[in-house]
Amino acid sequence: MSALQDLKERLAPILDLQRIMRILSWDQQTMMPSSGAGHRAEQMGTLQLLSHQLFVADETGRLLEDATREIELLDPDSDDAALIRVVRRDYDKYVRVPPELRAEMARAGTEARPIWVKAKADSDFATFLPALERNIELRFRYIECFDDVDEPYDILLDDFEPETSTAEVREIFGELKAQLVPLIAEVRGDDVDDSFLRGSFPPERQEALDKSVVDLFGMRPDSWRLDPTVHPFASGAGVDDIRITTNYDPTTMKSLFSTMHEYGHGLYNHQLPRELGRLPTGAPCSLGIHESQSRLWENLVGRSLPFWNFFYPRAQEAFPDQLGDVELGRFFAAINKVQPSLIRIKADEVTYGMHVILRFELEQDIVNRRVELRDLPEAWNAKVKEYLGLEVPDDANGVLQDTHWAGGQIGYFPTYLLGTVMSVQIWERATEDIGDLEEQLERGEFAALRQWLGEHVHRHGRKLSPQETLRRATGSTIDAKPYLAYLDSKYGAGVTA
Amino acid sequence: MSALQDLKERLAPILDLQRIMRILSWDQQTMMPSSGAGHRAEQMGTLQLLSHQLFVADETGRLLEDATREIELLDPDSDDAALIRVVRRDYDKYVRVPPELRAEMARAGTEARPIWVKAKADSDFATFLPALERNIELRFRYIECFDDVDEPYDILLDDFEPETSTAEVREIFGELKAQLVPLIAEVRGDDVDDSFLRGSFPPERQEALDKSVVDLFGMRPDSWRLDPTVHPFASGAGVDDIRITTNYDPTTMKSLFSTMHEYGHGLYNHQLPRELGRLPTGAPCSLGIHESQSRLWENLVGRSLPFWNFFYPRAQEAFPDQLGDVELGRFFAAINKVQPSLIRIKADEVTYGMHVILRFELEQDIVNRRVELRDLPEAWNAKVKEYLGLEVPDDANGVLQDTHWAGGQIGYFPTYLLGTVMSVQIWERATEDIGDLEEQLERGEFAALRQWLGEHVHRHGRKLSPQETLRRATGSTIDAKPYLAYLDSKYGAGVTA
Repeated sequence: MSALQDLKERLAPILDLQRIMRILSWDQQTMMPSSGAGHRAEQMGTLQLLSHQLFVADETGRLLEDATREIELLDPDSDDAALIRVVRRDYDKYVRVPPELRAEMARAGTEARPIWVKAKADSDFATFLPALERNIELRFRYIECFDDVDEPYDILLDDFEPETSTAEVREIFGELKAQLVPLIAEVRGDDVDDSFLRGSFPPERQEALDKSVVDLFGMRPDSWRLDPTVHPFASGAGVDDIRITTNYDPTTMKSLFSTMHEYGHGLYNHQLPRELGRLPTGAPCSLGIHESQSRLWENLVGRSLPFWNFFYPRAQEAFPDQLGDVELGRFFAAINKVQPSLIRIKADEVTYGMHVILRFELEQDIVNRRVELRDLPEAWNAKVKEYLGLEVPDDANGVLQDTHWAGGQIGYFPTYLLGTVMSVQIWERATEDIGDLEEQLERGEFAALRQWLGEHVHRHGRKLSPQETLRRATGSTIDAKPYLAYLDSKYGAGVTA
Repeated sequence: MSALQDLKERLAPILDLQRIMRILSWDQQTMMPSSGAGHRAEQMGTLQLLSHQLFVADETGRLLEDATREIELLDPDSDDAALIRVVRRDYDKYVRVPPELRAEMARAGTEARPIWVKAKADSDFATFLPALERNIELRFRYIECFDDVDEPYDILLDDFEPETSTAEVREIFGELKAQLVPLIAEVRGDDVDDSFLRGSFPPERQEALDKSVVDLFGMRPDSWRLDPTVHPFASGAGVDDIRITTNYDPTTMKSLFSTMHEYGHGLYNHQLPRELGRLPTGAPCSLGIHESQSRLWENLVGRSLPFWNFFYPRAQEAFPDQLGDVELGRFFAAINKVQPSLIRIKADEVTYGMHVILRFELEQDIVNRRVELRDLPEAWNAKVKEYLGLEVPDDANGVLQDTHWAGGQIGYFPTYLLGTVMSVQIWERATEDIGDLEEQLERGEFAALRQWLGEHVHRHGRKLSPQETLRRATGSTIDAKPYLAYLDSKYGAGVTA
């Protein structure tokens, strides 16, 4: 099987370059002095260009042809058959895009990020607009590389959630929207007292508490880091080099939930198939599957009563002035308070979906040229008013809140809600299989859950499609009903401990 | 001039890859979780391989030929003529080395580093020996790629100090050794009281004081970082992304001198010619010139009386228990105490040279196979006994103290002493040109010095050879006499404030 072996050796350095880009991006968002952005943009552009050139070279295509013949008789579930499927799909997609366009997209995304940081700090959309326009213009050029699709947004979505169409997402989101809007009206808890969740939460104590929770979950310091950043994310250079980040707002303890969220991403990266580490099949399956893991740890563990039965004394100890006199029941109701709010990453479980749906709708409007970019703040604010009943006071709390568009990442947002929906399907199956999961959480034990997720989700890497990964883990394709039922059961009668 | 332009465009991504390697190496030594070393070794190997392949490709050679014809009539001092000289020299050298060997050298160096860290912590040379053997074996294979040299060590030295022969270094070091050994005997100050320099120096106060000194020197936080590490070094991704590191020993304040040293390296990197940023000529000239800058800030500024006249009250404020009752005169004598010691980076100015000379001699023994690697600790300890009169108690304080051999960097050490010698030549000329430099230091003003160094040394980048850079800055080639005269004048009559 010599072509297959040669193909693997050709792919390994490409995977290295991709991992290096992840570390450089982590560095840029956590460590790099701000003036370094110019150098970094050149460097990212070069890595993107080289990685693309290596992958789309005729030699890759030739090896792929030959290797395809070599593996014809293999079990379709084998690592090698999966590899050829994944590489074939990527190759057919990548050869359509000129390397210069890829490099330009990488450069534009890197250069826009500090502009976005400043625009967000100043709450000034106008200074961000030219960078956004350049990014979106490059996406139009990217879409033009493809033909033969049902709608242009499919192209962008496929980069984040492969083998999933805009129409499918629209259908699921339609079902969610129809139920969420009335559910929010029904279960919103405007009179739930959460005043003690605002006040003084010293960052160094948040940091200590956040570290203690991910230590409990199973973060090993010899292969993980947790650092502060503006917009939390998870990254890393491989299964043994996992970097998660969080943001410490000194007036709330919401970093704890962000940190649990990023832990879920980190654990997925940490438990990917080690033996496929330098092959495309060793990468995560999709952003939706990735998000199912982060939302699972953030919400189904991190906002559950069994977890807080165990963990609440530690939080009280960390913030005695804020929580010392607050009973668990009041705390639990407060952290699960349903109330429309402006910032997606701080939204409660019930309203969260509407934040994603409005972005998904706006992105389709952008891609179909139904909205001018300069009018985005207005369009954004109108949707927030319609879906969440809120006035947006400024762009920092509106259209500028997320980093994704600064990086040119259109098509990314829907994966947040797809992942949230899948997280409940996966959780229900894990609960069933493990048997006493709830009791384990009450004892602060997470090993069985980590192991179940590793075995049923993480270990597949990219060998299976997102939907096939979900089907093998849960026996079902993506389905909004378990998620809606979970929300209804947890919130329908009011949250009590 | 199309071939020249094409050549520049071919070189830019190679420079990007080299800068990326610097940042990844910085990350490995300051941030990376320890288990990530395996991934990192693969990634560095890939970058090294790609960078090498791009550079040695036939296309580079063809463009170089054509560009050489295009620039024939240009002023030899012009940027483009210098570029062609530098690239020609590098190309003729690089094409001799198989890319696989380069990649293997990079991998071996990266993999050996954590082994060295552990061996040093355990003071156990035996566990480091196999990694060292692999590194040295690769150097022999590297040397074999070249013929037609006077001695094999020339090959290794040239990678760090171009256009400088082992014989020239041997001559300068011979002159130094002949004078230093008696000078040490004459000026050693065993009865100078420096007891207050050992005790309790809380790392967080060292960090604050070190930050304050480099802020004074001119480190701007938007383009610099200072971080803790095991073995101090300077790195960065370009003139606007400068990373320096230091090591906080809680029992001494020696980090301050390391930090000033690394500042000197950082300033050189920061003031390199910006317009040549993605060309080989925009890089530092040599490690010797680099070291002349670090030693200048560490010693000629940082161990000078004018500087301490200004800065001492701040040090007293930082460490009142240690220095509160110590007058400047006693402090100044203590930080300049001449006393043979075991650790190079903590050595005083007078004994420092012997640390380098013994390494230079051992490296020549290694390269000429006059010593077995397993016998290195014994050979090391014998030279320390002979030159410094000390018994080495363990390998952590002996042969394992430096990181260079773990990275395979044989030929690097001599540049430390060459740089030290040149630092005095440069300092004398700067003092002459600036006029009131001493008074400026007494007022805590460093802008004129920074500017003089930028104009006379840094701005040349790699456009000139190390010796030509020195000649243009000082009017002289490398010369041990000013350095020996400086030592004699500062230390000959005993150090007093």
